[in-house]
Parts: sequence; structure tokens; C-alpha cells
Amino acid sequence: MSSSSVNLKAVPGRLTSSYSEVQASRLDVSLPLPSVLKSSFSVVDGPKSSAAGNPEEIAKLFPNLFGQPSAVLNPGGSSVLSKDTSLKIGVVLSGGQAPGGHNVISGIFDYLQHCTSGSTVYGFKGGPAGIMKGKYVELSAEFVYPYRNQGGFDMIASGRDKIETPEQFKQAEETAKTLDLDGLVVIGGDDSNTNACLLAEHFRGKNIKTRVIGCPKTIDGDLKSKEVPVSFGFDTACKLYSEMIGNVMTDARSTGKYYHFVRLMGRAASHITLECALETHPNITIIGEEVAAKKQTLKSVTDYITDIICKRSELGFNYGVILIPEGLIDFIPEVQQLIAELNEILAHDVVDEAGVWKKKLQSQSHELFEFLPPTIQEQLLLERDPHGNVQVAKIETEKMLLQMVETELDKRKQEGKYKRDFLGKTHFFGYEGRCGLPTNFDANYCYALGFGAGALLHSGKTGLISSVGNLAAPVEQWTVGGTALTSLMDVERRHGKFKPVIKKAMVELEGAPFKKFASFRDEWALKNRYVNPGPIQFLGPAANAINNTLLLELGAQA
Amino acid sequence: MSSSSVNLKAVPGRLTSSYSEVQASRLDVSLPLPSVLKSSFSVVDGPKSSAAGNPEEIAKLFPNLFGQPSAVLNPGGSSVLSKDTSLKIGVVLSGGQAPGGHNVISGIFDYLQHCTSGSTVYGFKGGPAGIMKGKYVELSAEFVYPYRNQGGFDMIASGRDKIETPEQFKQAEETAKTLDLDGLVVIGGDDSNTNACLLAEHFRGKNIKTRVIGCPKTIDGDLKSKEVPVSFGFDTACKLYSEMIGNVMTDARSTGKYYHFVRLMGRAASHITLECALETHPNITIIGEEVAAKKQTLKSVTDYITDIICKRSELGFNYGVILIPEGLIDFIPEVQQLIAELNEILAHDVVDEAGVWKKKLQSQSHELFEFLPPTIQEQLLLERDPHGNVQVAKIETEKMLLQMVETELDKRKQEGKYKRDFLGKTHFFGYEGRCGLPTNFDANYCYALGFGAGALLHSGKTGLISSVGNLAAPVEQWTVGGTALTSLMDVERRHGKFKPVIKKAMVELEGAPFKKFASFRDEWALKNRYVNPGPIQFLGPAANAINNTLLLELGAQA
Repeated sequence: MSSSSVNLKAVPGRLTSSYSEVQASRLDVSLPLPSVLKSSFSVVDGPKSSAAGNPEEIAKLFPNLFGQPSAVLNPGGSSVLSKDTSLKIGVVLSGGQAPGGHNVISGIFDYLQHCTSGSTVYGFKGGPAGIMKGKYVELSAEFVYPYRNQGGFDMIASGRDKIETPEQFKQAEETAKTLDLDGLVVIGGDDSNTNACLLAEHFRGKNIKTRVIGCPKTIDGDLKSKEVPVSFGFDTACKLYSEMIGNVMTDARSTGKYYHFVRLMGRAASHITLECALETHPNITIIGEEVAAKKQTLKSVTDYITDIICKRSELGFNYGVILIPEGLIDFIPEVQQLIAELNEILAHDVVDEAGVWKKKLQSQSHELFEFLPPTIQEQLLLERDPHGNVQVAKIETEKMLLQMVETELDKRKQEGKYKRDFLGKTHFFGYEGRCGLPTNFDANYCYALGFGAGALLHSGKTGLISSVGNLAAPVEQWTVGGTALTSLMDVERRHGKFKPVIKKAMVELEGAPFKKFASFRDEWALKNRYVNPGPIQFLGPAANAINNTLLLELGAQA
Repeated sequence: MSSSSVNLKAVPGRLTSSYSEVQASRLDVSLPLPSVLKSSFSVVDGPKSSAAGNPEEIAKLFPNLFGQPSAVLNPGGSSVLSKDTSLKIGVVLSGGQAPGGHNVISGIFDYLQHCTSGSTVYGFKGGPAGIMKGKYVELSAEFVYPYRNQGGFDMIASGRDKIETPEQFKQAEETAKTLDLDGLVVIGGDDSNTNACLLAEHFRGKNIKTRVIGCPKTIDGDLKSKEVPVSFGFDTACKLYSEMIGNVMTDARSTGKYYHFVRLMGRAASHITLECALETHPNITIIGEEVAAKKQTLKSVTDYITDIICKRSELGFNYGVILIPEGLIDFIPEVQQLIAELNEILAHDVVDEAGVWKKKLQSQSHELFEFLPPTIQEQLLLERDPHGNVQVAKIETEKMLLQMVETELDKRKQEGKYKRDFLGKTHFFGYEGRCGLPTNFDANYCYALGFGAGALLHSGKTGLISSVGNLAAPVEQWTVGGTALTSLMDVERRHGKFKPVIKKAMVELEGAPFKKFASFRDEWALKNRYVNPGPIQFLGPAANAINNTLLLELGAQA
């Protein structure tokens, strides 16, 4: 076990002396707390819980945790927690960056400072690997301060390792024992929270005192449930992307001659693309879940875009903005089929220049392959991962669609059905959004999530995910509690075994956000209803606005 | 001559009903004016002017305007302008978008409303072509209002046509006469302002009453002089790009495994890249003017980047951020030479697969061609403009450099000089920055430029560029005047004739901004001094900050 010294070379602390004025102005902003957290409260259990699916299997996988109730913090009450308790708590960031992570840690830290005495917080470094290797730093007020309301995960850095094998559980156990941990907060996405629950089960099963609480993190917005209305970071990331989209829209309208194909981060679900559409009103938006539900092909998506471009040209508009989710092709079965066949062929055969190898493709896949732009064909054949597989993630979907639309427009031009010149530009908005300064919403939400996680650990809870609700109301009225992680779970069969999973929350075609989008998209397609959300503001009338998706979903619930 | 009806199909007006909260909040912000514009003033001439170069040739080209003094507005005085004057003024946007253009027009409009009576403003549509074709819209308070403090040029749209031939001058003259124009404001870059001056000369020479005033526009920041400290749009664009760069930096530091190669808009000069470096402190910044001055080659630029990456890896940093100006390869003579040879070869010879054609390249060009990544080689050979020329502008410099650095690192790895895995990501920040909501600085600066242009026309001036100075002071203390456009000019020899040009202001290696950057870059290279400027704020302590380049240049002047 290493000492708590920070490897200053690899993870330098921040120097507030080199902060911008905006960064500096955010440091001392006092964060509002839900009123229940501002005075004494008690933690009240709800009814026994079940699972999202296959409860009998979940019960087998989590014999000690299954069925435990969710908890809610109520003001006052008899079982007020003692301020004299001293706790040792670990915290870890897991997976990709999301704005607000630093505030979750600040919230945990501040909770322990205010509501317990002599407590210690250890920050595990570089994600779950830090737990297994016992790499950590003891957090102090001075250490935490420069990160308050700041973007990034660099306070303790994150990582993508998982605690999975018996050996790894053993390592985690060692660390928990050595540090005498009362609790651990895992800040992560669906996989990381599943992992957190397995760890909670493991500790409980072995009578180790360390309790585990999760926190919902991911800009993708695909970790949510009734009690966890949104994952943190989604709000900031969408607003950052929407700022850029809005600017590109204004440019499109001013210049009058470009179609902008904008790919947005978010591989599994299209929440980010949908939210950005609701914020900016683009002419065309592709939602992966709809493409899958309607069993659309690449050809039909191309035709859909091309049709609108042709109609717009008849109205005199020779420009537009098109939003495309990063994960689009994962939603198209024919593409999955082609890639599976290619992986098979590439593993065993030589790809001859003359193209004889293509005869090995099934006819539908062959047709699709020929339909793809040459640069994409090449990419499919040449760029392979270490296992020799096609690298789907490397395909620049926005460029692929642009080229397919160009080809289709050329065809229509020859047929006399399109008369203008088409100029396309492509963009990918991704890394710019994962580490922005958190919006007021994300800053406040994360601080409450962390504060609440502290309270749950203080009250002896384990296997819950910190849950802050009533988010459409002012912060004072937010509810605070914890949801049984097992209640969010289902099982998947992998390698002949049941594995617990928190199902990713996909865009629901019957949900309020999609329905609102669907009811407006035809108008947005042909009329230009562009909205420019502008840069995120921390002061003034627009500073506390909440993203459309969350508001609509909360409204639909009510 | 068409009527003043707006083609609503092609240029729809804005609907403030679909404005975001931030857009709406900007509409009614009252714009501060320099105090000289707030009460009566007189327009005072300075000494006779000359030219930036070849005054005798400029004198021949501008017999009616050459030598005229610059003008400055002084408070009070005897020659106060009459409020009873009624003026007919045209305004045109010329060239690429820059944040603030709408405020220049608002400034002109408001000046005429407040300081004259019964005046009319015509907005020429789609750039200089609107003047030639007589396409315009009469501006009203209702028409102008939705565009106040908003980005874009869509109020009247812009265009890249030029008024050049005798026939075109004749058309402009026709429009000026038909509309009985007292004045015309040309909002544009160096070329457009040269054009404005030629038009002023033409009108003066033919005794046409229409006077012409220019306004300095370009996000590139390469139109400036002592009296025109900065072109509008530069401040907003740089802040938008810097927001994104700062976020990518935080991501780089948090993730710890990516090098981000960021290409920034700005073809001719590297001002944007330099300003973004001063705002964010990246590890590596390439400035085109320095590359040219030091006669660097692509190989030496590649080595410079690779050396720093290797040194950083020894310090434990396996990530970083690299800024590259869009126009980089225009600054490298060997690349220009290669492209010239390629254009020649491609025009006359067949490019055989075996590569025999390469023997036609001179040895240095051949060597450079072989040094380029295969995708760039392909691009050079395949993507041609309608004249058959290589399309330099289409080369994605950031991807090219990334690939060359990868190759060099692979080599060093084999030599045991580099031990890590290298992962690169590329970005291009361009269109996102041209149409953002203008910063407070650009909003105020543009409004003053427009207001001042109105005053200059009111006082009978022509052939001047609106000049607002003392910009480091509060708006109240800004100076307002006009600089003789001929004083900014030199000549270039084209097709055997002297052509007047306003020389682009390049990054000066002896200037304060570059010197500051140069004094810090070694520290930034190896220590991580990243600054995250955050989103542009319209309220609060950071809202009125001015870009570093301008501040440093003003400081150096003082």
C-alpha cells in the first residue's frame, strides 16, 4: 500500500493563480443546499424494493442487498444523526469526464466537515484502479478548494478499470481494511454503479463495515430512473454543444450556402442529440432509437435528409443544420450485419483489389457495401482494432452521411429533381463538452448529490445511489435520498452466466421530450426556427435554466 | 431597380419569439457610448496624411482623396452639426461573418435617429452585389430591433462580390443616384475597405454626392493600424475558441492520455492562434509568421512538436494541447514550391500508380512529398479545384501534423527514445466562432463604430474608416474619428498594373503579444499552465474583459 503522497508529476494540483476571471469567479460562489440538508434530518426507509427485471435472478446475485428499500431524508425526526461520529470515507471517479464531478466530491467533503467530526476523505486516484492499488490522496480543504465549481475530473483523475475478478475484489477489500473505510462513494455511469453494488454486496456478505453509495454520472444522460431524474454533466454538455450548434445555425443563415452536418457525442443513446435539437431547432435531427424502431436503413436515412434538402431548395433555402448522434450506425441492423460479415471475411480471406472477396458478402450486405462512400469502404477494410475487427467507433458518421447525401443529390440533379449546388461542412462536438465549467444546475445538483451521499453513509446505508429529486423546483425544495441499486437492475446472459446490469435509459419514443421534438420537426425542417442558446451564463435571468429533457420528463411525471 | 420589398423566402426576418433566454436578455441591454458622442461635438481634421507605402502611386490612384487628413470628434466646438439635416445612407456587409456586424448597423441607425431628422437607412442585401443590383431593404426600428447585440450577418446578409470593373462602378453609381444616397457605409475587411476607398474616389471624381465610410471587420484580426486598434469580431471569436480550447485542456489533463491537435480559423495571419494561446496557455503553439521568418520546414515543425511530446513523456505527462493556425502551410515555402510543381505536373502529365511521375518533382519537393502522410499525398493528387489546381485550403493541417508526429514518434520508439503510447485527437474550430453573440466589448465597439460612421457621414467626410480608440479605457473615454483609407494603403503589382491594397497586419514577431507568448511558451510546454477561460459572460466581473492581444498592443503603444 502506497502512502498518501500525491504523485505531483502525473497529477499536478491546480494553481488558482493561473485561473481565468470566470474560473476564479466561480470558486467562491456559495452553493445552495436543499432545505432538508440545512438542518437536522432523519433517514426514512420506503417500502421493500424489487428489480427492473428478473427479480429472482437479481435476488440470487445480491442475497444481502436485494429488496432493500430506498431511503429519503426527512426534516427533523427522532433518529437524528450524531455530529460526534467520525467517518473514514473514500471517493472514486469512474469512466468518462462529466462536468460537476468535482462538486460531488466537494459535497461529500463539506457534509463530513459540517455534520460529523474528525472525519477523513480519501480520494482514490485514477479510477477504480486506485482502489485496487491503494493509490489515494487524503483530501483537505486546501486540496479541494481549487476544484469547486470547476470542470474536469483532474482532482483525483478517473479511469476505466473495473473491479471484477475475485482477486480484484480481494484487493479492494484489502484497501478498505487498511484504510479502515466506513464508506466509499463511486461516481460513475451504469457500469460503474453496477460495480458499486457488487462491491456493496461483497462487503456486506463478508461482514466488512465499508458501505458503498453510487452517484449518477454521464453526459450521455442514459443513467436515469424515476428516482434518479438525470445524470450529472448532461445539462452542461448539452448546453455547450447547443451554444456551438446555435452559432453554426446563425452562420448557416447568414452565409446561406452551407449544410452543416453535426455529429454529437453519445454512443449508446441519443439523449444529447435530442436535447440539443430541443434547444436549437435544427432542420434535420436523426435519433438513433427511432431509426432502430422503424428499422430504417442507411439508404432511408440518406433519403430522408436528401428529401428535406430538396424541399428547402424549392423554398429558396440552400442551407441548413443537421444533427446526428455519434452512435447512429449502431442502431442500423444492416450495418451491424455488414460489419459482422466483414470481420469474418477479413479474419480468413485476402481482400483482393479486383473485389472478388465481395462475393462472400450476403446480397444485402454487398448492396450496402457498394452504397457506402469509397472513403468509408476503405476505412472499413483498413482500420482494424488489435483483434482484427472493424473499428466502428472510428467511422466519422457525419462525413459518411454527407457523402451519401452528395451522391444522392448528384443523382437527383441529373434527373432534374434538384437544381442547386450543394456545399456541406462537417463538425464533431464531443471533447469540448465533457469538461466545461458546470452550469449552475450541474454545480448545485452535484453538490447536493455529494452532500446526500455523505448523509446516506453517515446513516449506515449501503448499495444505494444518491438520489436528488423535485429538480424543477428551486434548490431549497429538492428532495434528497438514496435508491436501492438492485432496484435499477436486470440481468443479461453473458458466457452462459447471468450478469447484473443497470439498463441504459434510451430515448423513449413515447416520452415527452421525443414527442415534443416529433411534433415540431416538420416545421423546423422547412421553416427556420433556429434558436441560439448563447454561452452558458452563471449570472442573470438565463443562468438557472434547466435542460428541456429533464423539464419535460418531470412535467410528464407530474 | 427592384423595389425595397424583402425577399422573405431567402432572408427571413428573425422572430424574437423563438429567441433563447440569453438572446432575449441581450436585446434590451442599453449600449454605452463614448462621452463625445453623447453631447454636441465637432469633427476636427488632423494633419495631411500619406500612404503606408509608395505614396506617389497611391496619389495617382486616388487623385481626389490622397493626402486627406484623418478626423477626430471633439466635444463641443463651433462646427456643431445640424440636427435638422435629413440623410439617406446605405449600409452593406462584405465578406465573412464576424460577431458585431448587426451592432454597427444599429449604431448607424441610432445615430441618424438621434442626431438628424427624417433620415433613411437602406440595407443592401447580400453584400456588394446588393449595391450593384439595387437590392436593398429600408431599415426601420422594428426591422433592426431583433438583431441588436445578436451574432450573424443575417439582417441583410453579406456577400463576397467586388465592385471592380467600370461596368460595376457604373451600376453602383446608378444605385447611388436612384436612391439619392448621401452616404454609404461599407463593413468589411482589408479588401472591402480598399474597395470602399475606390468607390469614394470614384464618386468624388464624378462629383456624385455619395460619400463612403468603411468599418473594420474580420475575426482574423489582420485589419488594424495605429488608429484602428482592432477589427471587430476578433474578440468574440477568440473567446469562443478559447472556451473550447480550455475545455479540451481540462479534458486532456483529466484523461491523461490524449494529445489534442487544434486547428484554428485564420488563413492569412495567425492572430487568432496567438490570442487563443495567450488566453489558454497550451503546451505547443505554431505561429505561421514565425515559421516563415525562421524558414522552417514541415519536418522542423514536426520535430519541434515531437521533441516536446518526448520531453513531456519523460516528465510523466502523456497528454497535451497543440494549437495550429489554419493557414500554416501557406507560411512554408517548400510546401508552396511542391504545390506549384504538382499543379504543373497534374496539368500536363498522367499520375501513374507506380510513381514514375514523381521523377518530375525537384529533389526537395520529391523528398517533401514522400515525407507527407499517404492520406495527404492522396488529397494533393485527387482533390482539385475547377482550374485543376491542388486545393490547399482543403488540407486538414491538424490531421496532417498529427500523422507526421505519429510517424516520427514511431521512429523514435524503435530507436528507444520514446516509450509511451501516443493517442492523438484533432479539432477544427472555425464556423462556431464567426456568428456567436458578440461579447460586451464587440457589442460596444461595433455600436460606437456605427455611431461614429454616422457622424462622419453627417459631417461630410468620405474615404475614411471609422476609428474608435483608447479601447483599454472605459467606453465613456473612447475616442471617435475616422482614418484616411489611403493612409493605410500600399500598392501591389498585378498583371502589370499597380493595385492599391491595405496590407494585412500580420503577427509581428517584435510585437508585445508575440513577445509575451515567446517568453512563456517553454514554461507552458513542460509545465501545465492551462487556463480555462470559460463561457463568455455578459454580466459579472469577467464580462468586460478585453482580449490580450489588444491590451498588450495598446500597452506597448502607450
